[in-house]
Amino acid sequence: MLSFRVTARDGAARRGVISTPHGEVDTPGFFAVATRGALKGLDPEPARATGVQALIVNAYHLHLQPGGESLARLGGLHGYLGWPGALATDSGGFQVFSFRHGQVADEIKGRRRTAKDEESAEAVKVDDDGVEFRSYLDGARQRFTPESSMALQRDLGADLLMALDECTPFHVPAKYTEQATDRNARWAARCRTEFERLGMAAGQALYGIVHGGVYPELRRRSALAVTGIGFDGYAIGDCLGQTKSDWYGIVDQVTPLLPEDRPRHLLGVGEPDDLVEGALRGVDTFDCAMPTRVARHGHALHPGLPRFRLDLTAAAMRDDPRPPLEGCDCRTCARFTRAYLWHLFHAHEMLAISLTVEHNLRYTARLLERVREAISSGTLLREKEALLSTA
Amino acid sequence: MLSFRVTARDGAARRGVISTPHGEVDTPGFFAVATRGALKGLDPEPARATGVQALIVNAYHLHLQPGGESLARLGGLHGYLGWPGALATDSGGFQVFSFRHGQVADEIKGRRRTAKDEESAEAVKVDDDGVEFRSYLDGARQRFTPESSMALQRDLGADLLMALDECTPFHVPAKYTEQATDRNARWAARCRTEFERLGMAAGQALYGIVHGGVYPELRRRSALAVTGIGFDGYAIGDCLGQTKSDWYGIVDQVTPLLPEDRPRHLLGVGEPDDLVEGALRGVDTFDCAMPTRVARHGHALHPGLPRFRLDLTAAAMRDDPRPPLEGCDCRTCARFTRAYLWHLFHAHEMLAISLTVEHNLRYTARLLERVREAISSGTLLREKEALLSTA
Repeated sequence: MLSFRVTARDGAARRGVISTPHGEVDTPGFFAVATRGALKGLDPEPARATGVQALIVNAYHLHLQPGGESLARLGGLHGYLGWPGALATDSGGFQVFSFRHGQVADEIKGRRRTAKDEESAEAVKVDDDGVEFRSYLDGARQRFTPESSMALQRDLGADLLMALDECTPFHVPAKYTEQATDRNARWAARCRTEFERLGMAAGQALYGIVHGGVYPELRRRSALAVTGIGFDGYAIGDCLGQTKSDWYGIVDQVTPLLPEDRPRHLLGVGEPDDLVEGALRGVDTFDCAMPTRVARHGHALHPGLPRFRLDLTAAAMRDDPRPPLEGCDCRTCARFTRAYLWHLFHAHEMLAISLTVEHNLRYTARLLERVREAISSGTLLREKEALLSTA
Repeated sequence: MLSFRVTARDGAARRGVISTPHGEVDTPGFFAVATRGALKGLDPEPARATGVQALIVNAYHLHLQPGGESLARLGGLHGYLGWPGALATDSGGFQVFSFRHGQVADEIKGRRRTAKDEESAEAVKVDDDGVEFRSYLDGARQRFTPESSMALQRDLGADLLMALDECTPFHVPAKYTEQATDRNARWAARCRTEFERLGMAAGQALYGIVHGGVYPELRRRSALAVTGIGFDGYAIGDCLGQTKSDWYGIVDQVTPLLPEDRPRHLLGVGEPDDLVEGALRGVDTFDCAMPTRVARHGHALHPGLPRFRLDLTAAAMRDDPRPPLEGCDCRTCARFTRAYLWHLFHAHEMLAISLTVEHNLRYTARLLERVREAISSGTLLREKEALLSTA
């Protein structure tokens, strides 16, 4: 079982340490997203040196390739990835169901669904037993059940495992969300049972996920069901609404329903302001692909700018001798100019992406270091603006 | 002026040290090719840790973007690239003329020239003054002269500069190669004069290039002309023939015509066996894009295999728990399996390329370390097979 100890409190916010068999995660902390087992082009060694203490990888993608059995024979994910630190796997439910429901980005951008999308949706069949889908690699039919997801995640060998769940989007009827919430609770219980039955490696831990979409009554029902089963930690998942204030409300409602002595993870959230707002509401860990994903488009995280992004591909960067972020202690800012990164992005040199990923991870890790210090000082709310507007 | 001292001899082979204002290059040594200022996705810090002590970047590409003046304002290439070590620029003549003559690869593979190729060729106009071409970025007409090339390379600020030259391919008539060889000699003299006139930064050095294609008489004529002008070092350039024994013959003929006390560089050659064969013939430094280029296609350098390449994308790698090269001391082989690299290549993760570049550079650097030791022991010829068949 996972050890978690709270070392300081500041209102609803708390500072602590999660101990895993592969090292500690200081909380509030960040899980960098290595979907298929890599942080874009960044070597895990400098990634770890940024201060990011944990990775989360995607069980669905690794199931399709190279496969859980192959990974088990190779000794599991830690060695495979060259990542000696804490490691989580998500169940892959989100990815499977995104074919059924469409991508979150489509929903936000109001994209129409095409015939091909409908075909993908048709290919995903959910019933009480589990979910069936087609591999995007070879078209083969695949099935995830709570039991098979546990076996897969055991084979992958991460420290933190996630229960299999269906993540419902905003646009489905409330009735659908209700049915999914209840089914997710039944799946959570089966995951817990199978997790025990399989005899996990010492210290492997399982997180349950709170569902219920934007409906307070469903959130409450889910939180009670999942905490009733009992998990090593709790993730807040499912649809968090359409605006930031939607998810603030959901987290405000849910965290008091979770046990004080267990870590709380907020799934898929990690913009700089989100990290501070989440911490203020008692969230312990976050994961988000944003810091690595936006690097690909030339965006370096930077305080005080719209959406916290500096566009390194903009014409103004061409002759700018400053580092991406003045005062930043990352290895990219210590060595390179905006001008060089502008050039690398325009020359389509992949080094541009690795260097920007490194900066973005360091920015995220440092922001959380400052959040932890503010919690210890009891000043998180007061320092919020300063944390987001300065390096 | 560049300092070069020979510390050991073994037949025609020699071991030595080139001292530049930015550090030493042990010879026989290798210049890694960072065409546009990056080694694919590999950070310069681990690149340097492989033992590769020098980079060569392309003045032509950096002229088009970001431009010599922009780079001069930014303080030159060393800071821009984050490379504190020895740095060379080639003049870019090779790139300009490759539009005129077609790529070497086309020649080797017997590709037919297309109408578009002919148009590119038309767009390159050479006369005694210099060469005119169109930017591949914006179509603007550009002109290189020996004088403008020196000004550009001074602005770039590398330690070793190359004279502007036309590199003739195998398929042109002997008469064309003769005319080009003589024109290159006149350009070399103008480069030398302009190099002196511009007042280079302390320690910047200029290499002359020996031409003459596959014609011994022209090689002799070019070597005499270029050494008569006098340079800090000498590169063997132009067409080296179609087979390895062609270039062995050219190098065998040319090196005795070059001053003993100046370093000799063999342009564009760097396969493992080429490094040993070149060293045996008295070559001091090499540059070649191969170790970085083949990494992109999933090829890890490996002794004793056809063309010294292990195909990490091959099906047999999928479950192979071994490092790319057993016994290799690179950071990639110390941490990762063939299975993981297979997965990363098939998942189109760019980290696959960075990690393979790092291995290939370390392989190349270590081979040359062993070559240097063999020279000191007086056993290079005897050890040739062992150097190429073991790690």
